[in-house]
Amino acid sequence: MIEKSGGGMGIFTQLFGSQQRNGGAQAASAPEAAAHDVREAQVIVVGAGLAGLTAARRLTEAGVSVLVVEARERVGGRTYTRPASDGTLLDLGGQWIGPTQQRMLALAEELGAATFKTYDTGNNVQYSGGQRQTYSGPIPTTDPLASADVIEAMLSLNMMAREVPLEAPWQAASAAEWDAQTVETWLQANVASEGARNLLELGVQAVFSAEPHDLSLLHFLFYVHSAGGLMDLLGVTAGAQERRFHQGAQYVSLKLAERLGARVLLNTPVHTIAQDDSSVRVIADTLEVRAERVIVAIPPTLAGRLRYRPALPGYRDQYTQRIPMGTVIKVQCLYPTPFWRAAGLTGQASSDSGAVRITFDNTPERGAPGVLLGFIEGDDGRAWGRRSQEERRAAVLECLVRYFGAEAGEPLDYVEQSWAEEEYSRGCYAGYMPPGVWTAYGEAVRAPIGRIHWAGTETATIWNGYMEGAVQSGERAAAEVGLALGIAVDPRNETQ
Amino acid sequence: MIEKSGGGMGIFTQLFGSQQRNGGAQAASAPEAAAHDVREAQVIVVGAGLAGLTAARRLTEAGVSVLVVEARERVGGRTYTRPASDGTLLDLGGQWIGPTQQRMLALAEELGAATFKTYDTGNNVQYSGGQRQTYSGPIPTTDPLASADVIEAMLSLNMMAREVPLEAPWQAASAAEWDAQTVETWLQANVASEGARNLLELGVQAVFSAEPHDLSLLHFLFYVHSAGGLMDLLGVTAGAQERRFHQGAQYVSLKLAERLGARVLLNTPVHTIAQDDSSVRVIADTLEVRAERVIVAIPPTLAGRLRYRPALPGYRDQYTQRIPMGTVIKVQCLYPTPFWRAAGLTGQASSDSGAVRITFDNTPERGAPGVLLGFIEGDDGRAWGRRSQEERRAAVLECLVRYFGAEAGEPLDYVEQSWAEEEYSRGCYAGYMPPGVWTAYGEAVRAPIGRIHWAGTETATIWNGYMEGAVQSGERAAAEVGLALGIAVDPRNETQ
Repeated sequence: MIEKSGGGMGIFTQLFGSQQRNGGAQAASAPEAAAHDVREAQVIVVGAGLAGLTAARRLTEAGVSVLVVEARERVGGRTYTRPASDGTLLDLGGQWIGPTQQRMLALAEELGAATFKTYDTGNNVQYSGGQRQTYSGPIPTTDPLASADVIEAMLSLNMMAREVPLEAPWQAASAAEWDAQTVETWLQANVASEGARNLLELGVQAVFSAEPHDLSLLHFLFYVHSAGGLMDLLGVTAGAQERRFHQGAQYVSLKLAERLGARVLLNTPVHTIAQDDSSVRVIADTLEVRAERVIVAIPPTLAGRLRYRPALPGYRDQYTQRIPMGTVIKVQCLYPTPFWRAAGLTGQASSDSGAVRITFDNTPERGAPGVLLGFIEGDDGRAWGRRSQEERRAAVLECLVRYFGAEAGEPLDYVEQSWAEEEYSRGCYAGYMPPGVWTAYGEAVRAPIGRIHWAGTETATIWNGYMEGAVQSGERAAAEVGLALGIAVDPRNETQ
Repeated sequence: MIEKSGGGMGIFTQLFGSQQRNGGAQAASAPEAAAHDVREAQVIVVGAGLAGLTAARRLTEAGVSVLVVEARERVGGRTYTRPASDGTLLDLGGQWIGPTQQRMLALAEELGAATFKTYDTGNNVQYSGGQRQTYSGPIPTTDPLASADVIEAMLSLNMMAREVPLEAPWQAASAAEWDAQTVETWLQANVASEGARNLLELGVQAVFSAEPHDLSLLHFLFYVHSAGGLMDLLGVTAGAQERRFHQGAQYVSLKLAERLGARVLLNTPVHTIAQDDSSVRVIADTLEVRAERVIVAIPPTLAGRLRYRPALPGYRDQYTQRIPMGTVIKVQCLYPTPFWRAAGLTGQASSDSGAVRITFDNTPERGAPGVLLGFIEGDDGRAWGRRSQEERRAAVLECLVRYFGAEAGEPLDYVEQSWAEEEYSRGCYAGYMPPGVWTAYGEAVRAPIGRIHWAGTETATIWNGYMEGAVQSGERAAAEVGLALGIAVDPRNETQ
């Protein structure tokens, strides 16, 4: 049990974190000052997010000895659950689970991570051109012309997406053409009405926490295909936002880590991975682990920051230079009740302006406190991330008042999480590809380098960028390592 | 004098490097094993390329105590001069100097780094659609229609470039539009003939060692403006390729380092920069230096890989995720004589196919041995970088025979340098911006973070990406630090 390992850090401390955050000049000389503990395992996993924990779990089940080293004082990576001032558990990171996310659904059931439906009853708010209107259904219908354009564009994009091979997007018949342009270029050329373009841009921002001009069209189409289709990505009911976890999404990782027990080592930031003909060494500030194989289960941009001996091939290194993380500040406001429900609203708003352009009802299933969730994404996230929390709070509340009325302006609590500031994520939701990267570097995404294997949702072919993709990647990496070790690893073994 | 410092490493060893390269599992435990030497200076410079050495030199001249820490066993960064098997000095990195590069021209004169004109007499070769033709002048005229299209496009691009403010490209009136698309998108929409597009794509590859679809149009226009115009970038006579250094381009850095003497510490890869209210500490494997300010003079993508305490703001960190290095393998073949000259050729070829699509005459001024220089750039560099040297050599020679005849197939020596493989460059010629980066992250490029200042050619406003830009950036950073220290630093002080 993890309660007995990691310096006596209990599950409660793991869940809520210690007050001592990484950082501060004090910590800087740790690498040199500390004496080194040397340990051994057959496989080391770097990163205790869902990908790393899944890989470790599958290997452990196959009888392989595993150690997981995690830089943070907690597990869960980009899932992170914290209590608000009244104790309400808030997901500050990934939180939703959708009906086609088979691995996550199975995992949740297996681990007793109960889910409930995201509140989705009533009308949605659309704020556009300074006007507030309400509508029902998934696509804003306040402007019929824009709606028709949106639907037509979505159908086209879905059809194009299906032509992108998930294992090898660069092999799509039109890969060169699609990877040579941004999503914005495609929208400008193919969507007539500005209202429709605004809505599609908002959809892109909501899914990628990046702008349509940041993304390769090929990457966008790959991502859509990997999720099933655009409505799978954008939808609440029947889509990626359908359900939430009662105990928060991090609970899944906490339960996985609990099973792995003392195999999970927190507060252990790795700085070097050295391999030779006989073994691989993973070196952190205070610990060195020797093994036969290592699975690096952190975002590619962070994997590129480790020191490798021998240095990695240029092709792999240059790939990690080209897959930046998205930019999102997740904001949650607590109220005595979800007052918008009484007004017949879902709590979902979309807007063409303001810091927060997308909102959801994030109230616990019991119905109180009322929680409004807002995202500050892409260029908004970049700009607002540089302002003070007071300025952000004011800008957020101004948006929420516009969408839901004056009551939204007086929250009991305001909680925000800016993922670009997190040293061991450096952005959310995921790494994305600008133009030219899939066609030139696609073969680098999963290719092992000697004893080093790669996991993480950015390496997934199903629900890339999501928790589901993280789990898939962990299972794939575990199977890959099992093959190298000559040990059968069942990627879908449900026994413990 | 540097001969007396750095463990007795003389200028000859510095020039030609020791045989012991970084890398190998052996070196991996250095961080932990070695005892720490602690030193002090007013300013530390990280990186002994032209930017760092220039900053150190200007500060030293102003009476500031400086230490330069360099990861490699040599100075010069992306300039690197090595002897071929017959002793001929070859520039494996940056090598040319152009007539508007005032800082480099002054520096070369001051340091006694003599230059000579790049051979540019005769006809150029164009290989297109499987056909070889020759032409004279800067623009291939074998297809008059394509030539006219090329000239028209270049005029348009030059006019657009002039509208990009060099200090703040994101403030161009059309910045949003230009930063939302790739250069490829612009070429497709604005250049009618395929032949013209091919030539312009080749020009982009030659200047950026990246593909037109990799680059933001805004970045391309900024870069063109920073150099003066497209012909300044592309030209030999009167352009960026006009002159070469007799002793190689690295000689400039070697002479600067010689003056700095024991202030330059080689073989000292920095891993951590920690700052607080009173000082900054720069920590390498075997050395810690304390100072008032630090200038980080390495490419942004490498600066992003250091550990900072406290961690850098997300805005700065995310910028470093978004400026990948170009991809180029520089190849040089030696022959008894420059046989192409007798055939009336300049040695310059351009091609629409093959590993090497751009060549130059790189013969020493004395006229022997004959040296043909070829570049494998962008997607070609990525693909050929993954093959064996034997395969690359065969592909290169096949191209050279096509352009210059059978004699080109039997070189005396074949020398190549793949910059993506260099751990402390990870690409060349420079970092470039994909779409969306200038408009969202432009303010991060030069903004100091507390006691940390940024230099390197990627931060330059004049000749960004070139040696000239590196020198400008070093002078700017030195002046910035001087201001912070209350010490007047003359950025153009020519005294020693």
